[in-house]
Amino acid sequence: MYTVDLNCDMGESFGAYTLGNDEAILDMVTSINIACGFHAGDPRTMRSTVNMALEKQVAVGAHPGLPDLAGFGRRNMDITPQEAYDMTVYQIGALDGFIRAEGGSMQHVKPHGALYNMAAQNGKLAQAIAEAVYKVNPELVLFGLSGSELIRAGIRAGLKTASEVFADRTYCRDGSLTPRSERDALITDPAQAVAQIIQMVKEGTVRSRENMEIKLKAETICIHGDGAHALHFAARIRDMLLSEGVQLKAVRDRKPD
Amino acid sequence: MYTVDLNCDMGESFGAYTLGNDEAILDMVTSINIACGFHAGDPRTMRSTVNMALEKQVAVGAHPGLPDLAGFGRRNMDITPQEAYDMTVYQIGALDGFIRAEGGSMQHVKPHGALYNMAAQNGKLAQAIAEAVYKVNPELVLFGLSGSELIRAGIRAGLKTASEVFADRTYCRDGSLTPRSERDALITDPAQAVAQIIQMVKEGTVRSRENMEIKLKAETICIHGDGAHALHFAARIRDMLLSEGVQLKAVRDRKPD
Amino acid sequence: MYTVDLNCDMGESFGAYTLGNDEAILDMVTSINIACGFHAGDPRTMRSTVNMALEKQVAVGAHPGLPDLAGFGRRNMDITPQEAYDMTVYQIGALDGFIRAEGGSMQHVKPHGALYNMAAQNGKLAQAIAEAVYKVNPELVLFGLSGSELIRAGIRAGLKTASEVFADRTYCRDGSLTPRSERDALITDPAQAVAQIIQMVKEGTVRSRENMEIKLKAETICIHGDGAHALHFAARIRDMLLSEGVQLKAVRDRKPD
Amino acid sequence: MYTVDLNCDMGESFGAYTLGNDEAILDMVTSINIACGFHAGDPRTMRSTVNMALEKQVAVGAHPGLPDLAGFGRRNMDITPQEAYDMTVYQIGALDGFIRAEGGSMQHVKPHGALYNMAAQNGKLAQAIAEAVYKVNPELVLFGLSGSELIRAGIRAGLKTASEVFADRTYCRDGSLTPRSERDALITDPAQAVAQIIQMVKEGTVRSRENMEIKLKAETICIHGDGAHALHFAARIRDMLLSEGVQLKAVRDRKPD
Repeated sequence: MYTVDLNCDMGESFGAYTLGNDEAILDMVTSINIACGFHAGDPRTMRSTVNMALEKQVAVGAHPGLPDLAGFGRRNMDITPQEAYDMTVYQIGALDGFIRAEGGSMQHVKPHGALYNMAAQNGKLAQAIAEAVYKVNPELVLFGLSGSELIRAGIRAGLKTASEVFADRTYCRDGSLTPRSERDALITDPAQAVAQIIQMVKEGTVRSRENMEIKLKAETICIHGDGAHALHFAARIRDMLLSEGVQLKAVRDRKPD
Repeated sequence: MYTVDLNCDMGESFGAYTLGNDEAILDMVTSINIACGFHAGDPRTMRSTVNMALEKQVAVGAHPGLPDLAGFGRRNMDITPQEAYDMTVYQIGALDGFIRAEGGSMQHVKPHGALYNMAAQNGKLAQAIAEAVYKVNPELVLFGLSGSELIRAGIRAGLKTASEVFADRTYCRDGSLTPRSERDALITDPAQAVAQIIQMVKEGTVRSRENMEIKLKAETICIHGDGAHALHFAARIRDMLLSEGVQLKAVRDRKPD
Repeated sequence: MYTVDLNCDMGESFGAYTLGNDEAILDMVTSINIACGFHAGDPRTMRSTVNMALEKQVAVGAHPGLPDLAGFGRRNMDITPQEAYDMTVYQIGALDGFIRAEGGSMQHVKPHGALYNMAAQNGKLAQAIAEAVYKVNPELVLFGLSGSELIRAGIRAGLKTASEVFADRTYCRDGSLTPRSERDALITDPAQAVAQIIQMVKEGTVRSRENMEIKLKAETICIHGDGAHALHFAARIRDMLLSEGVQLKAVRDRKPD
Repeated sequence: MYTVDLNCDMGESFGAYTLGNDEAILDMVTSINIACGFHAGDPRTMRSTVNMALEKQVAVGAHPGLPDLAGFGRRNMDITPQEAYDMTVYQIGALDGFIRAEGGSMQHVKPHGALYNMAAQNGKLAQAIAEAVYKVNPELVLFGLSGSELIRAGIRAGLKTASEVFADRTYCRDGSLTPRSERDALITDPAQAVAQIIQMVKEGTVRSRENMEIKLKAETICIHGDGAHALHFAARIRDMLLSEGVQLKAVRDRKPD
């Protein structure tokens, strides 16, 4: 029996600005990553997103990002490991305030955007983030790109981890995601995305853009909630996984190894 | 035997900008209020301030402020009670991340600047802030101006409270502080400040600017850490209290009523 | 022959966040007010909005706001006249950079949101804003609520002014807008809004919510570009004005008095 | 007869935070670079710095930086050339608002911190910045590291340029500054700094850290206004240049080639 977690980024609205279809997507996923006010999100959005998720019994995690609201946390910044540590502790804490206020508990932490990508490749940033998570709460699960430095750092720090795969992104030979600046970074054909996901979950492999089969671990699948076809796309992935007999469960509900 | 808490605002540096004499003042006080990144402070400063305080066994509290770094949180803003609730939860949580990471625990919450003043007079804002504190952690102590709406709201919410008095501010007949825009808002003569403090602690009264004796409760005294003479002034208040036989204890260490 | 300017707030997107239907609304108005990065807008949006407007020969103005992106500049803040002056100069200058880079010229300045409302009633803030506009460029036209302190301050400062009226807002007896917090602040019936506008333009009067006829001056009409029915509503006002024989002209193209 | 410009970064205070010895340093330099609110500075500081400089007849320039107040604009960010263009236009415009309001005129533009360093090496960023400056005002002088991509881009764009050298930094073989992360990046011995400056101004060369003599052009010298010994250091450089017969003149006052 295969089991996987479906996660989605949420709570990315800010002030008068609305982003995403949070309420609709909540019915399709098992875990959500909530923006914490640095790259997106604000206190009001954090509170209402936590409330919605707890009501629907979807597991919640922090989605700390770079302090770059203007760039939505997608621009690499030359931060030190200490700065990565500090901004991670701050953002986890801020979100946890809302979760505790509502009587819930935080499941996981997943760095956002450029912080996620830098931590996938830079061992020192990865270690700083893993330590931040561990020191705030050693029970938290660290989400990171399958095969990345972040997953390795999480394990070394003593954390539970969840290796993440992407339905709509292509992979390079070394297991990294094709950079968004490349022409073939995104998979836009839903059938191809679904096929990739099924292969990743069932066989633990993916075919890279150089047409090599590489190994990975699919413990949680990232789907996207914004964009015109996001909801339809998410529903299709969910339905196909279920029809293939794959159980969808939040990471906290998976069986111990 | 008289007992009182001495508190000071801290952690108000930001990025390349340094403010205050935090390390020196830490040796004189029993509780500190740490800025949480909205009106002042940043993740690095929060971490290092928490570290210093825990090392010196000074009690730590959150000092949530308005989202107005440019105005240092001192400009009144027309926020709703819901906004006050949200920004309070967020900032308490963020600071608590650092405190938990270091194995400490938070003693109290004291709103900063304009948020403090608005909550002293506006019952709805006061209630929202008190509920935010209570929902995050009902064991936290709420600091507020003696006799204010905030203290009343804290008691109604089921929180422990600490009534605060000021050494270097004059009082109006209704127990409010003379606004800083008035000529006689500040007490600059140390002897007069010390005399006012002793009277407040020992007799539970203060003489208002209209020369009326009014009642108040002095559970914690706010002293200031910035400005040329701050350290000297703080030391003088501390020494005089001790020589008058007043015990200085953090609120967490006071005897239950 | 009646002539009036139709203006709309624009360029309110920020980073990854999109707001409004700027391109469509540009075809309906004669002047636009471009957000300058404090309450909304960012450098990229300012550039592209200026470009679109110059291409369509719509007159451009600065829309300076309070430094409150989280609150969209709609929350009153206790700023000093000097602060109002400084933030106005800064924002006019910033927008003018883009206009000069594209070879255009700025027509007007209209304060945004809470800054607009505070300047309508507070003579000192109004004077500070008028002086800021005048000192940067005495040829700029100052937009303000008809009958407001801001219009008076503009005239005293030596500026040309344009008295503004609202199609979709109700008026109080003293000529101020009914606060948005009141139940009847907004006119949602298009027929009623159109009738109000025609009366304001042709007769120079409006019926207040207390059912009194009050005088005002309708030199420019503010229409809104966001919201579900904004485009339809704007088109209806525009068509009705034209069919009533009212000429639509940017303030810069009106005949001298 | 040798002539050189002495420039210093200024106006880096923000809100309640004060940085630098602006008033004192103004008496020693011929040009200043004023922070524009992104990495440092705020509208009040910009106004007062412009006022002081105009009064003392020191030439003023814009010092645009990355949108990173928390990092003081010193952390590299992965921005696009279009983003560099936009943030440069915005910041030049904002400062120019204050300069025009006071009846002055802007002499130059010098990118700050990480933006300066990235533009020294990245031709596309350099070109974007040069075009931004040119489009706002083709009479502005572009300051950049001697021998850098930024100077080349400025010349190609049709701008006047001023090649900048540093008294207190060591140079690499390729003419770039030794990164601050290296042990020998800074020259702390005043005698050595002065000797380096004299050689740069009089002979157009500098000895690199690898002990090779490299060519450069010293049209403007950057001195620093913050730090304990800044004023003394600045005075010593100034005095030595004068005693060596070097004329100190703002770039605007130099003779045409």
